[in-house]
Amino acid sequence: MNQTQAYIQENKERFLDELLELLRIPSVSADPKYKSSVADTAKLVASYLKKAGVNKVEVCETAGHPIVYGEFIKDKSLPTVLVYGHYDVQPADPLELWETPPFEPVIKPTKRHPKGAIFARGACDDKGQLFMHVKAFEAMLKSKNVPCNIKFMIEGEEEVGSVNLEKFCKKEKNRLACDMVLISDTSILDNKVPSITTGLRGLTYLEVEVTGPNRDLHSGVYGGAVANPINILSKMIAELHNKRGEIAIPGFYDDVDKVSKSERKAMNQAPYNEKSYMRDLGVKVLHGEKGYTTLERTSIRPTLDVNGIWGGYTGDGAKTVLPSKAFAKISMRLVPHQDPEKVFKRFKKHFESIAPDSVSVKVTPHHGGDAAVTPTDSAEYRAAEWAMTQTFEKAPIPVRSGGSIPIVALFGNRTQGKIRLAGIWSG
Amino acid sequence: MNQTQAYIQENKERFLDELLELLRIPSVSADPKYKSSVADTAKLVASYLKKAGVNKVEVCETAGHPIVYGEFIKDKSLPTVLVYGHYDVQPADPLELWETPPFEPVIKPTKRHPKGAIFARGACDDKGQLFMHVKAFEAMLKSKNVPCNIKFMIEGEEEVGSVNLEKFCKKEKNRLACDMVLISDTSILDNKVPSITTGLRGLTYLEVEVTGPNRDLHSGVYGGAVANPINILSKMIAELHNKRGEIAIPGFYDDVDKVSKSERKAMNQAPYNEKSYMRDLGVKVLHGEKGYTTLERTSIRPTLDVNGIWGGYTGDGAKTVLPSKAFAKISMRLVPHQDPEKVFKRFKKHFESIAPDSVSVKVTPHHGGDAAVTPTDSAEYRAAEWAMTQTFEKAPIPVRSGGSIPIVALFGNRTQGKIRLAGIWSG
Repeated sequence: MNQTQAYIQENKERFLDELLELLRIPSVSADPKYKSSVADTAKLVASYLKKAGVNKVEVCETAGHPIVYGEFIKDKSLPTVLVYGHYDVQPADPLELWETPPFEPVIKPTKRHPKGAIFARGACDDKGQLFMHVKAFEAMLKSKNVPCNIKFMIEGEEEVGSVNLEKFCKKEKNRLACDMVLISDTSILDNKVPSITTGLRGLTYLEVEVTGPNRDLHSGVYGGAVANPINILSKMIAELHNKRGEIAIPGFYDDVDKVSKSERKAMNQAPYNEKSYMRDLGVKVLHGEKGYTTLERTSIRPTLDVNGIWGGYTGDGAKTVLPSKAFAKISMRLVPHQDPEKVFKRFKKHFESIAPDSVSVKVTPHHGGDAAVTPTDSAEYRAAEWAMTQTFEKAPIPVRSGGSIPIVALFGNRTQGKIRLAGIWSG
Repeated sequence: MNQTQAYIQENKERFLDELLELLRIPSVSADPKYKSSVADTAKLVASYLKKAGVNKVEVCETAGHPIVYGEFIKDKSLPTVLVYGHYDVQPADPLELWETPPFEPVIKPTKRHPKGAIFARGACDDKGQLFMHVKAFEAMLKSKNVPCNIKFMIEGEEEVGSVNLEKFCKKEKNRLACDMVLISDTSILDNKVPSITTGLRGLTYLEVEVTGPNRDLHSGVYGGAVANPINILSKMIAELHNKRGEIAIPGFYDDVDKVSKSERKAMNQAPYNEKSYMRDLGVKVLHGEKGYTTLERTSIRPTLDVNGIWGGYTGDGAKTVLPSKAFAKISMRLVPHQDPEKVFKRFKKHFESIAPDSVSVKVTPHHGGDAAVTPTDSAEYRAAEWAMTQTFEKAPIPVRSGGSIPIVALFGNRTQGKIRLAGIWSG
């Protein structure tokens, strides 16, 4: 390994420059106005793969944003690792809350990282991680240390539900054949407490529209006589949870995986300091489902959050409008055995049933994804464990994460559960 | 009067052109980006007053938008009428709901107005009405039919609470001395059922900000463990009304003017067709305080409406954010004897008291205004009644309106209740 490490040392500055170049492109997949930036990012990722020595690299067009695919076959009899990552990023708004512009990366020392950390949209979700795999491969290849076949599949639609990736996987089944999938798109518990993510929550994301009167009205003339869709939507959202913090949709918990007492006990031994967690978030108390700890609430329990709400006049000053419509984006994090489509249908039925006659409601699905769990007793898991132990000088602990990567469950089906989610620090 | 009518006929086209010119300027007082358009509108109104023959015209600068003042003193011993109006307009968003651009007036025939009605922001609130008074004066003066002294005070901040008008009125107390105030800034019941507005609701307008975590979080990682300010704000809004549709703020109804049974009976004899009211608004059922009719709910009862709400991700597509903040603009329509400032304080205290410990809240006042009522047995009311009877060939009925004109209560104090609110059709 010394040669590999030497190569990394020699090329460190170039690696950093290339990463910063990648972070500078605003590859926001959700917003159509960034379409060409997303395409430029795909081309840059492809050029990095080529430079690293991946011999077959292709920018595969889809109905949406392109997928960058590359492969390096050393010997067909060796095991094949498929590296998955995404080069698209979440929208950067609200812009005013950024201390430095989201697409102008800066390196600043922090309390946790006195040597400096990179601040930019996508630095740790997921450009930094995919770049790490590309450069790890480059360093291993140049120092003649690659022990297996490697395939790279880097998509540009993870933040919008990976709709076209699913089609791509079905179509390119043979080309994508592999023994394990390696994904770095989650967090580790702490730099001093390395961890490997072995489970992810699923997702149902949807949008609701509540319509009262057929046009915006003057609240002075009509106020008090006509249902205000914002007031009604607020009431309906309030009714989605009961007093125990449980989700009040009939049947919502029917398929929820019951985690054993012993597993819950083990899980709660992960290092967690409630006071510093609250201090970090600037909150006086935490808030969640009764009967569960914070670690449980964010991993083995499903949740419902409003991710966005809007309606009426939201500009400067005051406008006495009684609006025609109010909207919300709502998502539910799911746990193993919950089916995103079934959850969507249950939500829709319930939401329509609690709507008063004074309004009409429309519930539209966005994207969804199954939850996933991977075993910890496989050779692949042990290999990942070994690699992290080398780096952190400490064995990683297996954890389940609260986030969702829609494509993970699909990989699970394709590779008979041989998925590894190597947690990488995400700042 | 024949000479006056002849003058109107001769100048009809010019009058119309001048009105359309006035409607073309986007004098949105709430939005700072229209500041120079608002100033241009003031200058145009001043030029119309001069052209009409008002001899002392002045554009009076204020800390905000200017007030146009003009006076025509025929004989100091004659009664003086002060005409109040406003040349500013409400913001025009949401723009996509306009069939034609808001500041490009068009004349289109409608079912109610087969000869054509003008469609533009401000056409009936309040540029059309103030223009009518200017041209009525012009026609009367040119035909030597002005029977009294006239003062015009046309402001540019009615839609943002008339803050500077109040100061102006105090400062210019002597200049503004008058026997009655004439305001055309409300509706009539119907073109076939003329009415004069004799009462207006007051207003308390405010903004709330609910803060959960100190930054936007990933809903996958933190969802379920931290209070989501949108969910909390929704719940708090829901709690502002009880099941009877009453406002659930302690003490809110303490000062509400109790209207007698006989007055309520008379009020409910105004023509009102619930079915066509609902059909016009496109709603299946109405919604309001139990125990009151629609006419009562919109006139003698106070109300609370959310006029705008926003928070989290509201762009295209999906973003799984657990936002740091959520906001709402909330207004309450008040009835006589309710004090806007007292109501604001009660709201603030209550809103803060229902906030869970998991969030912090900030309540900021916008503008307010007292409710007002004017007697129907005065000479001034009878003069207005006579004028409308001439035009509509039917006596107008006195009604109370749900809207608010903040300055009306102030006039009420200054002129010992001698206020006339002549309702003009508002489309």
